[in-house]
Amino acid sequence: MATVGKVIKCKAAVAWEANKPLVIEEIEVDVPHANEIRMKIIATGLCHTDLYHLFEGKHKDGFPVVLGHEGAGIVESVGPGVTEFQPGDKVIPLFVSQCGECRFCQSPKTNQCLEGWSSGGHETMSSLETRFTCRGQKVLQFTGTSTFSQYTVVNQIAVAKIDPSAPLDTVCLLGCGVCTGFGAAVNTAKVEPGSTCAVFGLGAVGLAAVMGCHSAGAKRIIAVDLNPDKFEKAKVFGATDFVNPNDHSEPISQVLSKMTNGGVDFSLECVGNVGVMRNALESCVQGWGVSVVVGWTDLHDVATRPIQLIGGRTWKGSYFGGFKGKHDVPQMVKAYLDKKVKLDEFITHRMPLESVNDAIDLMKNGKCIRTILSLE
Amino acid sequence: MATVGKVIKCKAAVAWEANKPLVIEEIEVDVPHANEIRMKIIATGLCHTDLYHLFEGKHKDGFPVVLGHEGAGIVESVGPGVTEFQPGDKVIPLFVSQCGECRFCQSPKTNQCLEGWSSGGHETMSSLETRFTCRGQKVLQFTGTSTFSQYTVVNQIAVAKIDPSAPLDTVCLLGCGVCTGFGAAVNTAKVEPGSTCAVFGLGAVGLAAVMGCHSAGAKRIIAVDLNPDKFEKAKVFGATDFVNPNDHSEPISQVLSKMTNGGVDFSLECVGNVGVMRNALESCVQGWGVSVVVGWTDLHDVATRPIQLIGGRTWKGSYFGGFKGKHDVPQMVKAYLDKKVKLDEFITHRMPLESVNDAIDLMKNGKCIRTILSLE
Repeated sequence: MATVGKVIKCKAAVAWEANKPLVIEEIEVDVPHANEIRMKIIATGLCHTDLYHLFEGKHKDGFPVVLGHEGAGIVESVGPGVTEFQPGDKVIPLFVSQCGECRFCQSPKTNQCLEGWSSGGHETMSSLETRFTCRGQKVLQFTGTSTFSQYTVVNQIAVAKIDPSAPLDTVCLLGCGVCTGFGAAVNTAKVEPGSTCAVFGLGAVGLAAVMGCHSAGAKRIIAVDLNPDKFEKAKVFGATDFVNPNDHSEPISQVLSKMTNGGVDFSLECVGNVGVMRNALESCVQGWGVSVVVGWTDLHDVATRPIQLIGGRTWKGSYFGGFKGKHDVPQMVKAYLDKKVKLDEFITHRMPLESVNDAIDLMKNGKCIRTILSLE
Repeated sequence: MATVGKVIKCKAAVAWEANKPLVIEEIEVDVPHANEIRMKIIATGLCHTDLYHLFEGKHKDGFPVVLGHEGAGIVESVGPGVTEFQPGDKVIPLFVSQCGECRFCQSPKTNQCLEGWSSGGHETMSSLETRFTCRGQKVLQFTGTSTFSQYTVVNQIAVAKIDPSAPLDTVCLLGCGVCTGFGAAVNTAKVEPGSTCAVFGLGAVGLAAVMGCHSAGAKRIIAVDLNPDKFEKAKVFGATDFVNPNDHSEPISQVLSKMTNGGVDFSLECVGNVGVMRNALESCVQGWGVSVVVGWTDLHDVATRPIQLIGGRTWKGSYFGGFKGKHDVPQMVKAYLDKKVKLDEFITHRMPLESVNDAIDLMKNGKCIRTILSLE
């Protein structure tokens, strides 16, 4: 291509500071360095984690930054040392890398990787090394990805090559939300056939968790949300029961305990709220209940009484659904193409990158499940 | 025997109120009712949980009560419907019953039983039905056992029949502390061969956890205690490294992280302190570390940051080491007789029941591992 070996100028949505709208800017994207891949992003989802770092968490590594981490694209060029990818390959950039060689990658117990952007000791989710500049200023990359840009540069250990027939403006959801929720149920909780589950929070991650519970053979899936508008959608993914905590005067853990003869076998917190995390744990049955923290927040402690654990409950967390990205994301894409995993049903809105602030407003106000931004 | 069918008068240590010394009294022990066994207690250990309910937890079901739950004895007589036990059988009373028929007993995932004393909705560890009276007053039983009495009455679902050759004044330790710690490592944490473990607190439960880690094949066992006098004993049970948090200015989780290239694979909290529980979790390695709460307390919340869980750590709790008492305790007795499990090494003091308050002082002041009280 004509761009190979040259700096690319393209559009990106830049967060110049916390709590402010993103600004569509022309940025410069450097050539890929050794072991890096420059890709054209075709489409990206907008995820709560983007909002968290723009507002609540205030991206501790600083601003300006290009957010976005749920994208899909096409390889434009590769840096020295890259043999696994070629220009034209369809890819999904990964915020969780898989180098394949560190002791974490070598272990079947975790999908975390010691070589990714987060191993540099950042407090939060940014790579301090970046290939972006704008108006003469360095612009940070986010989680080693930054999909709110028409082009981005990603280390090859954080890129999954996917089926050439995959529709990028749909499978981009496998870059974060859907894998996160689905895998939390299947890989982390290890939901069992015939079991009873509860999913707290029915955003895209929660709905994907419902789908994961259903896929794993759960007999009963209780969908919990303060917004009853979400229940219809949850049914599509397999939920069997619906609970709005506002409809009850007693604690939700007691409501679920009464519905299930003592509590659910598995619960998944897909909100990112420490109070809900506690409720999710305490909704589990004594003896063997497993609760998984899926939602992201790290501003406050999460707490419970020790007897909840001593009584036989297990508290876990899930990060990108426990999926090892390079290996597993292509398989999830295939599962979608084989109609074993739903994706289209998550998409409620489509708009161009220029409307990213409208998409943010929709998400903040709970008016969407997933909005797909087109970058073409 | 001459006592069969009659009320027995015998000695017991009665707790008349919280925070006061126990009083040696003559009590009356009723005949066993249906499905109950009356046994002569030969020896009993004194456990921190007895102290917890005498002092800190203030036995919420009230006083007077006969404490003690780590005993061993001989069946004196049985009530109607008991066919599994006969007078003369050596037995260990169990504070965790095993009815064998409830959905908990039927599950391999838990050792809790829905038919035990705790299923009556007590806030804490007492059976409100009791076979004891003293000075014309009903005296409560504790955890359905009450081993600080020369005779006690226990439901048959809470009695383990053990090898006739077992020395009761040693195997009584399998009624609580040693099974609790050993099983927490082997059954709940499921410590793996070659792994690195940390045990917080080197009382009898902690030392038994060290022994469990060693038995499971751990390569490195880090013993943590504020009292360095405990380290020599920990070595006997298999500890390889010794850390006194007072010797370090940085948090113990960071000390252990540096010692172990990122944290331990398994940690066991054997103190009963919510701060230590947090430290134990946060000492685990990201990705797959498992921390087990073994120590008993329920006065405060236990807390951590969600990222600790999302980062791949698992938080669990253990109750009586996950052992199903009727089935597993006889096997632990056999393991002791076969020299596969140490018991004698836990015993630092022996004294008669009349000296129970001296034994309490020794334990409160950290001057013993286990004191065995003789009731003969």
